Amino acid sequence: MLHIPRKDLEQLCSGIFEALGVPAEDARDSAEILAAADARGIRSHGTARLKRYAEGLRSGLMRGDVKHKIIHETPISLVIDAQGAMGLSLSKKAMKMVIAKAKEHGIGACSIRDSNHFGIAGFYSEMAAREDMIGIAMTNTAALGVPTFARVAAFGTNPIAFAVPANNGKIFSLDMATTTVTRGKVEVYEREKKKLPHEWAVGKNGLVTDDPVSLLDDMFHQRGGGLLPLGGAGEDMACYQGFGLGVLVDILCAVCSGGVFGQSVRDIGKSSARVCHYLMAIRLNLFRPAEDFRRDMTTMLNEINALKPAEGATRVYYAGQKEHEAEEESKRLGIPLEEGVWKTLCDIGTELKVPVPKL
Amino acid sequence: MLHIPRKDLEQLCSGIFEALGVPAEDARDSAEILAAADARGIRSHGTARLKRYAEGLRSGLMRGDVKHKIIHETPISLVIDAQGAMGLSLSKKAMKMVIAKAKEHGIGACSIRDSNHFGIAGFYSEMAAREDMIGIAMTNTAALGVPTFARVAAFGTNPIAFAVPANNGKIFSLDMATTTVTRGKVEVYEREKKKLPHEWAVGKNGLVTDDPVSLLDDMFHQRGGGLLPLGGAGEDMACYQGFGLGVLVDILCAVCSGGVFGQSVRDIGKSSARVCHYLMAIRLNLFRPAEDFRRDMTTMLNEINALKPAEGATRVYYAGQKEHEAEEESKRLGIPLEEGVWKTLCDIGTELKVPVPKL
Repeated sequence: MLHIPRKDLEQLCSGIFEALGVPAEDARDSAEILAAADARGIRSHGTARLKRYAEGLRSGLMRGDVKHKIIHETPISLVIDAQGAMGLSLSKKAMKMVIAKAKEHGIGACSIRDSNHFGIAGFYSEMAAREDMIGIAMTNTAALGVPTFARVAAFGTNPIAFAVPANNGKIFSLDMATTTVTRGKVEVYEREKKKLPHEWAVGKNGLVTDDPVSLLDDMFHQRGGGLLPLGGAGEDMACYQGFGLGVLVDILCAVCSGGVFGQSVRDIGKSSARVCHYLMAIRLNLFRPAEDFRRDMTTMLNEINALKPAEGATRVYYAGQKEHEAEEESKRLGIPLEEGVWKTLCDIGTELKVPVPKL
Repeated sequence: MLHIPRKDLEQLCSGIFEALGVPAEDARDSAEILAAADARGIRSHGTARLKRYAEGLRSGLMRGDVKHKIIHETPISLVIDAQGAMGLSLSKKAMKMVIAKAKEHGIGACSIRDSNHFGIAGFYSEMAAREDMIGIAMTNTAALGVPTFARVAAFGTNPIAFAVPANNGKIFSLDMATTTVTRGKVEVYEREKKKLPHEWAVGKNGLVTDDPVSLLDDMFHQRGGGLLPLGGAGEDMACYQGFGLGVLVDILCAVCSGGVFGQSVRDIGKSSARVCHYLMAIRLNLFRPAEDFRRDMTTMLNEINALKPAEGATRVYYAGQKEHEAEEESKRLGIPLEEGVWKTLCDIGTELKVPVPKL
């Protein structure tokens, strides 16, 4: 594992985006959001994905130069047609607009259609949390999750992020998929030739499977099968709860914006285009003075940390705590990156004549 | 199983509430909400609970005659101190206020502290859905859920309800606990002398247990143990997602209102007093004309119903569909009620000199 200074990593990625036609500010924002994922230890959503963005930009599925269109606006809401824009930088812009609305009117909400991967949802929700607001961010994704009692994928891993501030910069930051796991985790089990734990996925007949090889093959060829909703299989494990949450994300992202949902969200070529997002900010002092709110939040998070751990466990965490600790550590040590990921970034940079930082 | 005409069931329950000091309109509303749960087949939250409400009203833990206090208000938000009022009727009143705010300003939100059980969360969210709004309702509950890696209960089953309208009266209506199961389900396994499925609960050492008897005993004596968050145990099963959602409910219900959260929400005596609620309504046309929104929602729900079922399954449902079909059936057949529940209601009625309907 390498440790790359954040500035170097962001500069390289930003340079690559710019070389591929993304305007300078959007390129910087996009690099910032990918690097943030690596810094927090969410490597599945970090700069390892830059390759996919680069392919999307090259093929034209993702458009770095397009201007989004605001198709509906009220004092507290916005609907944006992204027109295939970069999901990362557009979502940061949109969250700023949402926060501005919430500053003025207490609440802001934005639904975005026809966008692209926006990276970690938690990046946007935390933007609001740092402004004394409750931040919300969601996105739909290519359909990989199989509804309760079905046998084909019909909704995405559809993550939901909520961020709420406490004192001293602490943030409760939940960023969760609505499937039990993501496809990336199944791929890890395939590489390690391990059986899948019970309740992760169903095969093409709709029954629980522990074989990652046939599962991924069936999913790839759209023969059926896919990931289980959060909660697992059947009503005993309450997976209809996870399925319901996944549908809810589809509603807020895609029905609110007039975008695509359900099985219509598919991986197209090398990118996953046309996904939809939902962003929201709610000012704390709609309910109580922000300092009272944050004080109680601090008590809540401290109480969680003070719980006696289970046998064999060492700590009880609140949502986002591990990721924030990792981000703090990355400030001292640099951002941890697999050598292969760094090499790929450097290769793309060299090819595009972007200066590659020396480590 | 008996089948009771809805009018008779509501009249008996309403009469009992009134005899216990609840004003007539609040008594009718409370009876309506309990009967709605039975009609939808959610018997755990139906008139079988009237006994607990009656005990709460008699002991003074629950107060039928108290007037709630609005302690903060903006054009789009409300904070209410329930002062120990009936959660059922107060929450219906509060949701009406939230809907009125949303009608005028697009969004309404209300956080309520120091209340009592409000029955099925879905009742309130659906009130908004019938007004062309997205409806949201949550409540915290007595701490029964054990956070990921902990060994004591520190958050409630904390249900979340979302309701979104489609055409022809169809409503996507998610009403889910954020624990994998509720304590009621564990009690059923105890009565039937069955082992608990994996990933439902942990014992007092924080490790997964399949023994409902020792679990319920340890929980009752507060020695530790409790229900697992939605998703199960440990990070493999993603239960930190369910734990995060449970905490989120606590934040919106209790931190927003200045109420009690986490381990401080305990069953007191025979009632579970001092719980907090959160209600919200978002007008569909903040985003799109309501008819366009509902049309896409209808497409979405039809697509879910059209999915090929898994081997051995017969139908794929959307959230709330089973419950609404049960409610339709109850209009023809009466509300299904266990004989013991009906007898208890009649006994309480007779004792309080409330006319008991003849079946």
